[in-house]
Amino acid sequence: MRMYDIIRKKRNGGELTAEEIRFFVDGYVLGTIPDYQASALMMAIYFQKMTAAETCELTMAMAHSGDMLDLSAVRGIKVDKHSTGGVGDKTSLALAPMAAACGIPVAKMSGRGLGHTGGTIDKLESFPGFTTALTTEQFINNVNRIGIAIMGQTADLAPADKKLYALRDVTATVDNMSLIASSIMSKKLAAGADAIVLDVKTGSGAFMKKEEDARALAEEMVEIGKNAGRKTVAVISDMDQPLGFAVGNALEVKEAIYTLNGHGPADFLELCLTLGSQMLLAGEKAADIKTARHMLEQVIADGSALRKLAEFVGAQGGDSSVVYHPERLPQASIQKSVISSASGYVNRIVCDEVGSCSLILGGGRETKESSIDLSVGLVLCKKVGDAVKAGEPLAVIHANDERKAAEAEKRFLDACFITAEPPAKTPLIRETLS
Amino acid sequence: MRMYDIIRKKRNGGELTAEEIRFFVDGYVLGTIPDYQASALMMAIYFQKMTAAETCELTMAMAHSGDMLDLSAVRGIKVDKHSTGGVGDKTSLALAPMAAACGIPVAKMSGRGLGHTGGTIDKLESFPGFTTALTTEQFINNVNRIGIAIMGQTADLAPADKKLYALRDVTATVDNMSLIASSIMSKKLAAGADAIVLDVKTGSGAFMKKEEDARALAEEMVEIGKNAGRKTVAVISDMDQPLGFAVGNALEVKEAIYTLNGHGPADFLELCLTLGSQMLLAGEKAADIKTARHMLEQVIADGSALRKLAEFVGAQGGDSSVVYHPERLPQASIQKSVISSASGYVNRIVCDEVGSCSLILGGGRETKESSIDLSVGLVLCKKVGDAVKAGEPLAVIHANDERKAAEAEKRFLDACFITAEPPAKTPLIRETLS
Repeated sequence: MRMYDIIRKKRNGGELTAEEIRFFVDGYVLGTIPDYQASALMMAIYFQKMTAAETCELTMAMAHSGDMLDLSAVRGIKVDKHSTGGVGDKTSLALAPMAAACGIPVAKMSGRGLGHTGGTIDKLESFPGFTTALTTEQFINNVNRIGIAIMGQTADLAPADKKLYALRDVTATVDNMSLIASSIMSKKLAAGADAIVLDVKTGSGAFMKKEEDARALAEEMVEIGKNAGRKTVAVISDMDQPLGFAVGNALEVKEAIYTLNGHGPADFLELCLTLGSQMLLAGEKAADIKTARHMLEQVIADGSALRKLAEFVGAQGGDSSVVYHPERLPQASIQKSVISSASGYVNRIVCDEVGSCSLILGGGRETKESSIDLSVGLVLCKKVGDAVKAGEPLAVIHANDERKAAEAEKRFLDACFITAEPPAKTPLIRETLS
Repeated sequence: MRMYDIIRKKRNGGELTAEEIRFFVDGYVLGTIPDYQASALMMAIYFQKMTAAETCELTMAMAHSGDMLDLSAVRGIKVDKHSTGGVGDKTSLALAPMAAACGIPVAKMSGRGLGHTGGTIDKLESFPGFTTALTTEQFINNVNRIGIAIMGQTADLAPADKKLYALRDVTATVDNMSLIASSIMSKKLAAGADAIVLDVKTGSGAFMKKEEDARALAEEMVEIGKNAGRKTVAVISDMDQPLGFAVGNALEVKEAIYTLNGHGPADFLELCLTLGSQMLLAGEKAADIKTARHMLEQVIADGSALRKLAEFVGAQGGDSSVVYHPERLPQASIQKSVISSASGYVNRIVCDEVGSCSLILGGGRETKESSIDLSVGLVLCKKVGDAVKAGEPLAVIHANDERKAAEAEKRFLDACFITAEPPAKTPLIRETLS
């Protein structure tokens, strides 16, 4: 078998066999197939696309290219949740303890990542002492004992995906649906869960700007998951404005705590209940959506989800008292209101621009080496559709640098559109696919 | 400027600017742009194609990526001839002395190349002592003194093309018309001629199997040549059967000598006269085709073309007496006739299979390191359309190894089709574009 023939076949619109795909993935990880042949293949795939069968094979080959996490020692049906990412997306922070409190074992691998804020692990480090440096044994023990543990992503999970993604990133071959789907799913499959609930975001703050693209991606991922023998559900949710009010690491932790206290933003709570219901169904803890939603509302109402968060933070070395005293989370020195000069209705908040504000303030990473300021970010006062009067604040910026605060303020005002009439309502949850 | 943006622009169907193309070519030669980005761009070009303007810019950038041969010290209008290659293509061996005898200064860079026989330089080395290791000064002096010189291709001529072609060769991105055209023309432009006559082959023994592809390639190259300010003409000629009778290095030299003696195969002579006429017109040695053909026929009839060959061989260290005693050229130890078992007409001789016979016998190179046996090859006895009786020879194989001779014989018989009725005639010269 020769890599040249594989490139040529795909270039000419042929369907690659399982053997050809494995030959490529294995050779690429070993280094016997060079980057320049891999990038030529990726570009050929960009143009000729992949069939469902090819996408599944690529996903499986990448999933098996390194360690496959063995979660068989964890009792019960392990359900993983994955979001394609957005602005103000602190879902895992609230949803993981909610699901755990309902009896779903949450054994989560999470990353730090690049973006406008840190990843789930960065956010959790807002709790003093919190660490994700667990051995696999500690990780499994914690899940069995308290129902929840989060571990940093190890380097050996789907190394083929890691290497290939880095190549695609510099050769303009990222945006192909099958390649995106296989990249996400290869990591999820290697991470060992029995069932996977996907939160596919759409809108200006999402990777998939158009809803039809989000749907296509969701369909491909569900198909892959099923073919791999994992129960897989995808929810398509709105990311045309930030989720909830808070954007920023500690600020989002605080909002998650408020939510577990029963005072969360309506949209964020709704998303947690929707995704959580799917998790409870997949994990066979509830027979129908109505029962599942009720169970999730119950663990908020009775405080057991909040206690689960405290237990989890404590079990991973964090100061669990902060869960009950969120005012002890890292706080920025400057709090500056962004004032509306117009009266009317918030028509649009350009979502990725709000992400950029967080990045400007120091809340995210531009390169792997960047350090993150956990305290900064912004908290919206108005969401799309809200009435606003001239002189009222649209948001509060949390900063540690006056210059950066001013820059973020300007950027935020440019991203916020006020009109005389209220905009048409767009639903938060667009669709659920399984 | 970033290479990523250039790849993405082409991927999305955009037209690259002159600056973008130069940035890529210069960076690629310098090594600041890696192979994996170059191959992604090549694959994007394969799918999105290039406009005439882009193709010209790429050609010029590659032509200028190394040395540009300065032929200004050569008196007169320098006319270069280039063939896209075929089986039995010994055109330069006869045509160069013919054109020189008509007063066209022939200052030729030539290669060795991979293929079923060697390149022009290999063939010329059939003359004992012949060398192409000239300094540029000797090269120019020889052209001014005797009207003809051939030099080995230096490494510094269009290095961008050399590097890029090697990459395309292993990433399935060779067969794009604009890339092929720019690869050929960049070398021709760097080689410094004032005018270029292109022999674009079509048929089973050619790179362009289909005539429409040959025409498209010819059009692209003529366009590039014109845009670069060089008079450029392309002749599309048949390569559906071997040119002339002889295939093999010394065997082809012998046939070229026969042709200069007035005893050449009709098709080969016709091609030399057609291409030569275009050279004489481009070099302003004749005012019209009829005059040009007559001049070329005259230098054969009066022996001046043959004397020019002898003068040229002698000036480059070769034994010029061999020109008058072609029996002294390298000879193979075995001469074996391939006998027809059927009677009828030669309907088809699969041209690239005849090339493979030569390669099997040791007449060509499979890798750069292969050595060539100058004496071996085969000489057709029958051409397409000829009548043949069972028991008559179709060809004579010249070999130095019985086993290889037997293998070539079998291969040749499989490539030769005899039918009861004569096939329709196909013209040798399909079209002339300028």
